[in-house]
Amino acid sequence: MIETAAEKLGLPAFRLEGLLERRTIAKVLSPFPYFRFDKGVGQIETGTVIFANREKVEIVRGFPKIRRAMTIAAITKNFSKLQKVAVEEKMNGYNVRVAKVAGKVYAFTRGGLICPYTTEKALDLIGTEFFEDNPELMLCGEMVGPDNPYVPKKVYSVRSVDFFIFDVREKETGKPLPVKERIELLKKYQIRSVKLFGEYPVEELDRRVKQIVKKLGKAGREGIVVKDPEMLLPPIKYTSSESTCADLRYAFQFFNEYGQDFFFSRIVREGFQAVDFNESRKKTLERAHRLGESVLLPMAESIRKCKRGENISENAHIRVRNLETIDEFEAHLRRLGVEAIFDEPEMDGNGMYTVNIRKLMQSTTDKTKAILGGQLW
Amino acid sequence: MIETAAEKLGLPAFRLEGLLERRTIAKVLSPFPYFRFDKGVGQIETGTVIFANREKVEIVRGFPKIRRAMTIAAITKNFSKLQKVAVEEKMNGYNVRVAKVAGKVYAFTRGGLICPYTTEKALDLIGTEFFEDNPELMLCGEMVGPDNPYVPKKVYSVRSVDFFIFDVREKETGKPLPVKERIELLKKYQIRSVKLFGEYPVEELDRRVKQIVKKLGKAGREGIVVKDPEMLLPPIKYTSSESTCADLRYAFQFFNEYGQDFFFSRIVREGFQAVDFNESRKKTLERAHRLGESVLLPMAESIRKCKRGENISENAHIRVRNLETIDEFEAHLRRLGVEAIFDEPEMDGNGMYTVNIRKLMQSTTDKTKAILGGQLW
Repeated sequence: MIETAAEKLGLPAFRLEGLLERRTIAKVLSPFPYFRFDKGVGQIETGTVIFANREKVEIVRGFPKIRRAMTIAAITKNFSKLQKVAVEEKMNGYNVRVAKVAGKVYAFTRGGLICPYTTEKALDLIGTEFFEDNPELMLCGEMVGPDNPYVPKKVYSVRSVDFFIFDVREKETGKPLPVKERIELLKKYQIRSVKLFGEYPVEELDRRVKQIVKKLGKAGREGIVVKDPEMLLPPIKYTSSESTCADLRYAFQFFNEYGQDFFFSRIVREGFQAVDFNESRKKTLERAHRLGESVLLPMAESIRKCKRGENISENAHIRVRNLETIDEFEAHLRRLGVEAIFDEPEMDGNGMYTVNIRKLMQSTTDKTKAILGGQLW
Repeated sequence: MIETAAEKLGLPAFRLEGLLERRTIAKVLSPFPYFRFDKGVGQIETGTVIFANREKVEIVRGFPKIRRAMTIAAITKNFSKLQKVAVEEKMNGYNVRVAKVAGKVYAFTRGGLICPYTTEKALDLIGTEFFEDNPELMLCGEMVGPDNPYVPKKVYSVRSVDFFIFDVREKETGKPLPVKERIELLKKYQIRSVKLFGEYPVEELDRRVKQIVKKLGKAGREGIVVKDPEMLLPPIKYTSSESTCADLRYAFQFFNEYGQDFFFSRIVREGFQAVDFNESRKKTLERAHRLGESVLLPMAESIRKCKRGENISENAHIRVRNLETIDEFEAHLRRLGVEAIFDEPEMDGNGMYTVNIRKLMQSTTDKTKAILGGQLW
């Protein structure tokens, strides 16, 4: 089977064996044994998965990292050879790939794990018809909404959670469909696409992007992805100041759980955008104050919590149809190393169960308590 | 000679040989060959130096890292076994050790290099009398003032540069003199000590420190070092919000030259101090805005400079008595990897030469230009 997998991935078999040995390709046990790329290797993305049974080997390629423009001119420059580019909304939820493997439809997180909750939602919202007709394709999209336990957001007028698809790709090669082709195909199955703002001439990008991103920012939304309509060039993302600040506000609550580059890269983004938008002194000061508040206030609030003797934690919830999904999701979080306390499920009128989840932020709690207890830096 | 050095340092000779081989102990060639600890090893501090010639081996121990309190309670807790503690000013310049070695007085930077400029200043300001009487002692102090090429500051009403001594230590063991003994000894030689605010009962620390540090902050000064009067327990530093913000303001101009922990640790300090000072909502907002401005404005200014086609650089200057010191200092900066352009010296009425220095911040310049040129993140 290694030979088949290696061939599909375009790697020499001995290379694949080496990666398995070093656990760069890690074994997953749930809901059945398969393998996932814990790190990207050459052209193979992080989160790429390999299924193998007696009959066949199936690959689901990982979702490629989308590079970020720090200025609008960078977008223009990178697409300068094109006539037009498509501008789509980048939504703030979590990246999911939905694909049929081993005869069933599953939802994969970025890292290549099957999330039982997301899988239940995917089956509810997307169903299996698309995959019966197109077993060779995967849907890449964002799961957003308040009942999303990873990145709960209320900005999208989604009541529970919903999938917004931004890419349809061949699951075994990762090759994407052109933008319009994707939208038409999804329409046929009544599957939602992310919003396409339009296809614009490259010369108009500066004006269009600034206008769109400012408007999105004001609505608390994240930003855009700019695409080659043919999907031959890699897409580029660009985000609003408000979204950057929301990230900082969120992460500084849990300042010790995040890598320092998470904070640093977002702060630097704000510097470049201030200059790129050619802001007045007054606007730049407003941006500085927004940045400062996003950094300091959530951090101080968490420290105050610890001072009162509380732990630092995050509240989230899930809303499921099947009670088993709760246990499976709990096990899933445990495997991710997340320490979470699940409340008792509460049934609502629609035959759904809501479960409140408190995720304990152990590292930030420990560090804060130690410092408040007199530990020196 | 290795045996003698090893004995003085309390290390086995084979260990010292290993450190030399791995270049943890690095050879310095200027102004004459000697060795310095590039990293701390066990009890031996970074910057410890070893001189050896046919006649003898001399050691100058490095200056130990002073740990930082993130809250005032941490200071109290760490000194809870003492009746009283001494509170001294921590000044914002650069840490220098002055000691006599190989028969002459030299000034060492933190890392154990002899700085020719600092040495000239030390000889001018402190002279050699102290060392003639006390060849076994070293003076540890801060060199501050506007003519300081590393950390130019105008807040201390020092016209050019001055040394403020905070520790007198045995140069071969690093053992410090008790606070009062140090002050009296320095007084005898008319050598300046840093300001001693007083010796306070530990119970008063909270009130005293808050008051002193707030006042220092308002004057743009850095903070305090709290010491065991007998210097048996290690001292602890604690700094003002204004000083933290000044650090950020300075470093964000050159955001790519600094480690991300430089920024992160200072931002986290502000969170703890906001809670520690039990600030009103209004005061915390002011702190957040000060923080945001310290981060965003200097960074945006540097990016704007690059956009105008300029390089990002820092201006500093030195003021020397001897023209040779200029060349020696230029060579010293080159050895440190600093790319600096020295203007022609200008003579002033007092027989001194002023030289303007422009330090090119290559990493920040390159990164900023690349991003402005369309590079993706």
